[in-house]
Amino acid sequence: MKRAHVEKPELSKRAGADPDLLSRYLAVRDTSLRLCAPLSPEDCVVQSMPDASPVKWHLAHTSWFFETFVLEHEVADYKLFDPNYKVLFNSYYHSVGPQHPRPQRGLLARPNFDTVLAYRKHVDEHVTRLHDQSGSFRGKTAGLVETGLQHEQQHQELMLMDTKHLFACNPLKPAYHVCVQSAAEAAPAMRWLCYKAGVRWLGHEGGGFAFDNETPRHRVRGEAFALATRLVSNGEYLEFIEDGGYGRPELWLSDGWSTAQTSGWQAPLYWEKRGDRWYELTLAGLRTISPHTPVCHVSYYEACAYAAWKGARLPTEVEWEHAAQTIGAAEGNFLERGLLHPTVAKQRQNRSEPQQLFGDTWEWTASAYLPYPGYRTPASALGEYNAKFMCNQMVLRGGSCVTPRSHIRPSYRNFFYPQQRWQFGGIRLARDLH
Amino acid sequence: MKRAHVEKPELSKRAGADPDLLSRYLAVRDTSLRLCAPLSPEDCVVQSMPDASPVKWHLAHTSWFFETFVLEHEVADYKLFDPNYKVLFNSYYHSVGPQHPRPQRGLLARPNFDTVLAYRKHVDEHVTRLHDQSGSFRGKTAGLVETGLQHEQQHQELMLMDTKHLFACNPLKPAYHVCVQSAAEAAPAMRWLCYKAGVRWLGHEGGGFAFDNETPRHRVRGEAFALATRLVSNGEYLEFIEDGGYGRPELWLSDGWSTAQTSGWQAPLYWEKRGDRWYELTLAGLRTISPHTPVCHVSYYEACAYAAWKGARLPTEVEWEHAAQTIGAAEGNFLERGLLHPTVAKQRQNRSEPQQLFGDTWEWTASAYLPYPGYRTPASALGEYNAKFMCNQMVLRGGSCVTPRSHIRPSYRNFFYPQQRWQFGGIRLARDLH
Amino acid sequence: MKRAHVEKPELSKRAGADPDLLSRYLAVRDTSLRLCAPLSPEDCVVQSMPDASPVKWHLAHTSWFFETFVLEHEVADYKLFDPNYKVLFNSYYHSVGPQHPRPQRGLLARPNFDTVLAYRKHVDEHVTRLHDQSGSFRGKTAGLVETGLQHEQQHQELMLMDTKHLFACNPLKPAYHVCVQSAAEAAPAMRWLCYKAGVRWLGHEGGGFAFDNETPRHRVRGEAFALATRLVSNGEYLEFIEDGGYGRPELWLSDGWSTAQTSGWQAPLYWEKRGDRWYELTLAGLRTISPHTPVCHVSYYEACAYAAWKGARLPTEVEWEHAAQTIGAAEGNFLERGLLHPTVAKQRQNRSEPQQLFGDTWEWTASAYLPYPGYRTPASALGEYNAKFMCNQMVLRGGSCVTPRSHIRPSYRNFFYPQQRWQFGGIRLARDLH
Amino acid sequence: MKRAHVEKPELSKRAGADPDLLSRYLAVRDTSLRLCAPLSPEDCVVQSMPDASPVKWHLAHTSWFFETFVLEHEVADYKLFDPNYKVLFNSYYHSVGPQHPRPQRGLLARPNFDTVLAYRKHVDEHVTRLHDQSGSFRGKTAGLVETGLQHEQQHQELMLMDTKHLFACNPLKPAYHVCVQSAAEAAPAMRWLCYKAGVRWLGHEGGGFAFDNETPRHRVRGEAFALATRLVSNGEYLEFIEDGGYGRPELWLSDGWSTAQTSGWQAPLYWEKRGDRWYELTLAGLRTISPHTPVCHVSYYEACAYAAWKGARLPTEVEWEHAAQTIGAAEGNFLERGLLHPTVAKQRQNRSEPQQLFGDTWEWTASAYLPYPGYRTPASALGEYNAKFMCNQMVLRGGSCVTPRSHIRPSYRNFFYPQQRWQFGGIRLARDLH
Repeated sequence: MKRAHVEKPELSKRAGADPDLLSRYLAVRDTSLRLCAPLSPEDCVVQSMPDASPVKWHLAHTSWFFETFVLEHEVADYKLFDPNYKVLFNSYYHSVGPQHPRPQRGLLARPNFDTVLAYRKHVDEHVTRLHDQSGSFRGKTAGLVETGLQHEQQHQELMLMDTKHLFACNPLKPAYHVCVQSAAEAAPAMRWLCYKAGVRWLGHEGGGFAFDNETPRHRVRGEAFALATRLVSNGEYLEFIEDGGYGRPELWLSDGWSTAQTSGWQAPLYWEKRGDRWYELTLAGLRTISPHTPVCHVSYYEACAYAAWKGARLPTEVEWEHAAQTIGAAEGNFLERGLLHPTVAKQRQNRSEPQQLFGDTWEWTASAYLPYPGYRTPASALGEYNAKFMCNQMVLRGGSCVTPRSHIRPSYRNFFYPQQRWQFGGIRLARDLH
Repeated sequence: MKRAHVEKPELSKRAGADPDLLSRYLAVRDTSLRLCAPLSPEDCVVQSMPDASPVKWHLAHTSWFFETFVLEHEVADYKLFDPNYKVLFNSYYHSVGPQHPRPQRGLLARPNFDTVLAYRKHVDEHVTRLHDQSGSFRGKTAGLVETGLQHEQQHQELMLMDTKHLFACNPLKPAYHVCVQSAAEAAPAMRWLCYKAGVRWLGHEGGGFAFDNETPRHRVRGEAFALATRLVSNGEYLEFIEDGGYGRPELWLSDGWSTAQTSGWQAPLYWEKRGDRWYELTLAGLRTISPHTPVCHVSYYEACAYAAWKGARLPTEVEWEHAAQTIGAAEGNFLERGLLHPTVAKQRQNRSEPQQLFGDTWEWTASAYLPYPGYRTPASALGEYNAKFMCNQMVLRGGSCVTPRSHIRPSYRNFFYPQQRWQFGGIRLARDLH
Repeated sequence: MKRAHVEKPELSKRAGADPDLLSRYLAVRDTSLRLCAPLSPEDCVVQSMPDASPVKWHLAHTSWFFETFVLEHEVADYKLFDPNYKVLFNSYYHSVGPQHPRPQRGLLARPNFDTVLAYRKHVDEHVTRLHDQSGSFRGKTAGLVETGLQHEQQHQELMLMDTKHLFACNPLKPAYHVCVQSAAEAAPAMRWLCYKAGVRWLGHEGGGFAFDNETPRHRVRGEAFALATRLVSNGEYLEFIEDGGYGRPELWLSDGWSTAQTSGWQAPLYWEKRGDRWYELTLAGLRTISPHTPVCHVSYYEACAYAAWKGARLPTEVEWEHAAQTIGAAEGNFLERGLLHPTVAKQRQNRSEPQQLFGDTWEWTASAYLPYPGYRTPASALGEYNAKFMCNQMVLRGGSCVTPRSHIRPSYRNFFYPQQRWQFGGIRLARDLH
Repeated sequence: MKRAHVEKPELSKRAGADPDLLSRYLAVRDTSLRLCAPLSPEDCVVQSMPDASPVKWHLAHTSWFFETFVLEHEVADYKLFDPNYKVLFNSYYHSVGPQHPRPQRGLLARPNFDTVLAYRKHVDEHVTRLHDQSGSFRGKTAGLVETGLQHEQQHQELMLMDTKHLFACNPLKPAYHVCVQSAAEAAPAMRWLCYKAGVRWLGHEGGGFAFDNETPRHRVRGEAFALATRLVSNGEYLEFIEDGGYGRPELWLSDGWSTAQTSGWQAPLYWEKRGDRWYELTLAGLRTISPHTPVCHVSYYEACAYAAWKGARLPTEVEWEHAAQTIGAAEGNFLERGLLHPTVAKQRQNRSEPQQLFGDTWEWTASAYLPYPGYRTPASALGEYNAKFMCNQMVLRGGSCVTPRSHIRPSYRNFFYPQQRWQFGGIRLARDLH
């Protein structure tokens, strides 16, 4: 899978005036299909837990999104591919209508994989025709298409997360792809970059696409802090485990402790001890733990417990975004990523920035996912996209090795419940300066 | 599907000396595959509830059965197709080893359908070779092969039960096969056949295969009773519904009432009211309720409530088997059955026997599933086949429209929990005579 | 507590013509109160699990029973003590009206203990007045009063069962009463009494009170069997534990095994291992296990597993009752019982009968709790007393050390779910003879 | 109950140098007992849900707090009243040792009420003796005693919350106290007070007691906003109900909607519709809803849905505290409160401040309960007091009609899960200004 060849960086372009929007549309849609290449229809129908969805469902739902928000609104006399899909592939939009229950997505043996492909083709043809009628997507349509693409990219990451979870449930430990594990370079020493107190800007500054939850841009006063130059590694996390970290309640949040006890957590998700040795299920199958690779698939609770054990804390999202702005989120900062597992940034030992803020793992922050001051829920059905989830979840920043590169930006707010672990989430430490 | 052409009646033959055992083996194995003809691999991987299993799992498990109990024991140096399958496809045999958890059978996207077919082929080839080496299955082997065939036939019925349940979970209401609904003939009037008090024989009398739970044959003293000449029909059951039967606790067993309340039962499983009209999901899709067809997919609790409402009761298994012996369980008593839904026996109005004891629906009895007096659990691993389930379940007798014809016999004891409904279970009334 | 002085044997008297019914009424009612003597109002309000009820609830419910079934029907213009009690203290009689949910009985801090005592007094006064108006309870009234007394005796046993369970939940391990543990005599050797095959009578033969579920008396054909002369002792059960009985699935029913695994059973309820030694919570507090005392507080599943381990089985209720009839259930067979724990029958080594069939523990039988042939549910509200529970439960016979002596008789059918353990249930072995 | 006579305002005094600390100790301890005056021991032992605790447990736990954190540390050779209490009455302090499981607090019939009173007396005597030995509480001891008093005041509020919940579970609807419902004055018109953008101070400014979670005081930049002059009233909330607010998902947070659906919410906790009329269970029994009284017992989810319906939002805790500082949190701002239900502030129509920020209901804010910048978890066992709960909960500010007056201060941070409703929580609206 060479996603790098398919997608082109679009961060500096304005969505509304994008001459390449149709080609980007076709490329993103194609990427979703290419992600299925290693999978059989059987792999694509099973749902391994209520949080996850079958890959086939993702393929259909992302098409439903374009059908519902673009074609139904913008194409006169558009005829639905199948009226049943209105319910089957509606994720959570009450304003659109009823939804097939999330935990039962895996019961949908029908429509089968081929029918879903036909559905995608149908939608793609109508979107293309809509474009070709006037030579471009106009006005609101362009924005809706752009949102649909961003949405599909989110689901591309989910497809890999969900496939990894499904394969991990299988005692045969299947691999999504073959990947030669390179000899791990030693992680560079962790250093601290210091930032002064002051008023900082938070939120998307305009230019390129952003979700509503990244706005409005606003100022926040903050104290001085230090941020680690790199993510916590497997080797460092292993020290926490070996120091009894999973058995010491004083390090944990109360809800975290009871979750860890109830769920029997002894290590990150996908870790497995055989004899004296730790292994990790990756998309390339079961591998020995690489000590220099960033630790991944930890919950917010584990991230906090680790930080407490180190006498540090997680950064707030203001601190994180401030650091990202400072070092410049230029494309050059992204490294080549693989699907195997998070990779350590190549050493850039003479530089002082937090390296590799993007592309290894999502980074848990200490911030609850709440609306920014002055945030307004969009008036349309897409008002349900983000706003209603602003409760009980924590923000993650950055982007992971399975995040489409063009989907990453400094102001991006990802969010998960503190107990969730199947996303590619890791730990960057921060601390107070005084 | 013309299963009638495939299977030949074997009730009067002794398993141990059966010259046709290999051809029966091949025919039964083939039937399992032909049952999958209308299904895609996607249909075969999903598990719709913990009680049900994916069709693919059934195909593999029945092969595991022959591999484990025949090939591993009888073939020197037999090499397992895949050692992982020892666990994956072990249903509940502790003496064989650990088992993949039942509610997670649906997570097994791998091995895929084709691999399971290869597994079946591998097993079939080795079983055939075992036969051909000596020109027959000898001694204990013949018995094990016979048991494996009976076992596979049980799973053939389960495959259809589980597929029906899966399709019913799908809002698209897919059909397993196309079937023209014939104009329903009126059900004959229900009459009562009377039996005197006395000592009766219960249990398999030898000749042909029987499971351990049908033995030992023994005598039971019983009072006079009357048995209905036919099953309760949909139309009759509808009167119970319309008389408020589901809302009258005085008709129900205590556990039944609380199950019905908790589960929101208002009708048999698969019934659905649209407007004023009742529909039923069948293997041929959604159909209007046919009033003359036997009611099906009722729990023991509903069967008892219905009987109480009629001032009658269910027959005990002694009474049922006595009646079946009396009328003779000759093949001629079986009717052609379809997969669509239970069919009404063709009217034989001048005969006085309980017609059609076999082949429409399984018939709930008033008897708990317990060992017969003098029953001994077999010493081998197959001792786990039946004995350990002799608690909390009720016996059903007869055989349903999805039971392989050659699998039906008067002494056969089927058993389900009183709240289960996805088996093809119906109601025959009895009453005391005095 | 000297219950023996209060109650007089009444087994040979006919309820309808009992000149002493009022004095028995007063004595039974008084016994309930005396059972509360060691308890505070706080002890009487708590519900330790949904199966158990608070003692205060028992005191009120048994009064509700007389109020509802005797006073409301037989006393013109009877005024309810409190109309709310109609719902609060209705256990499960749908024909009487709605019921306060069983698992919420422990939330009823009000009415307080003193108010419930006043309720009891109110009911007793009206029942006495009803008697005194005509010098006796007449006709149907006498039968209802008798049933109410039997019912209250059942609740007396429940009061002790429930108190024991409550105290066992308390880390302070309180004692219900002080009781000097006598030096345990060695249990006599277990012998087998043999019974020939034949037709036996089952069910109450008339004379004295019996519940509907003990009727009609009928004949059952049975095979030859042997019955152990005494109950399985703690010491014998300990051998089963030490032989790994709780870890060997081949000994267990399937439902039993999964219950034992899920619940973490390693010993009977109330047993506790400290260091190398086993203790048992009794009504007199925590005691070391006495090896010669009958094992108690085992589930049906454990009883079956133990029997399988011994190569034996449990008796059916026909076998049990036949044995009880043979040896004569004369009063002289009852031994003095204490509340501490089951006591071993005094050795009567020269006798050949199964000694002590009554008064140590209830004895699990191999029989499901089902109606006898020809059984008819009574037409009145009391039809809900027994019939609707005839599913999913197993019969226990005999009577325990906390069963009121006058409540015990050979035909008495007690019943519990196979997983329940808080009743005083033990094990008597049987085996086939051939 | 005249708590006003017992407690004296102490906000302006420094805890460490408080000459009256012992008399305050005795007064607070006495208040806890006086709160039990209307209750029987039976009322005090029952636990109505896992979130609530029995009143007796509160009485014991608050004593355990002094015994564990004051007496055990400060008194040489202090002998525990009962070593079992170390576990039984430890709420959640892992550093102290194991804890009796929270959901099983209601099983502790023993120790009985009188023994818990003796426990309190024992602790009070030793605390008094500790004081009298040196004529004052010195240094660290004074701080621990002060913390213990604040802690006990928190439990005084819980005692009333939990009693109200218990009584609400009882169909008899008992009242905690008799209280004549005064004719409700009309609520004043809701007005908006405007605040400019700028940097504001947040956190306790020193002087008097504060919990660690109120520190450190720090600056926060904020936008202009408006705050409502009073709480939302029952009458206003009723309009939301009647406008179908509980059935309109677009008004709700996603987690809120699913909680409301699952739990069947149709109104605030304790509201009950009989016929066309709404009633409310209060500590004085069932009352008709007073339209002018602040709505109470709503969850965060309901508060947000209501705000969305009004086109407004909840204030952040910064905004709330800023407003409280502006109007001055002088004692004169507190009104006399009753236990019956929240009372409407007396009209002060010529004033422009948000009136009555304290003493009616706690006020949900839009802020997640997280540590302030620079917050450090205290090093002692009391580090578990607040820090480990800083996840998944939302902050409430102000104080309710059942909060001890001396426990209220502008910087106080109360916190509950967004779905919890049994605390006295209400709604004050805010909105953006621009």
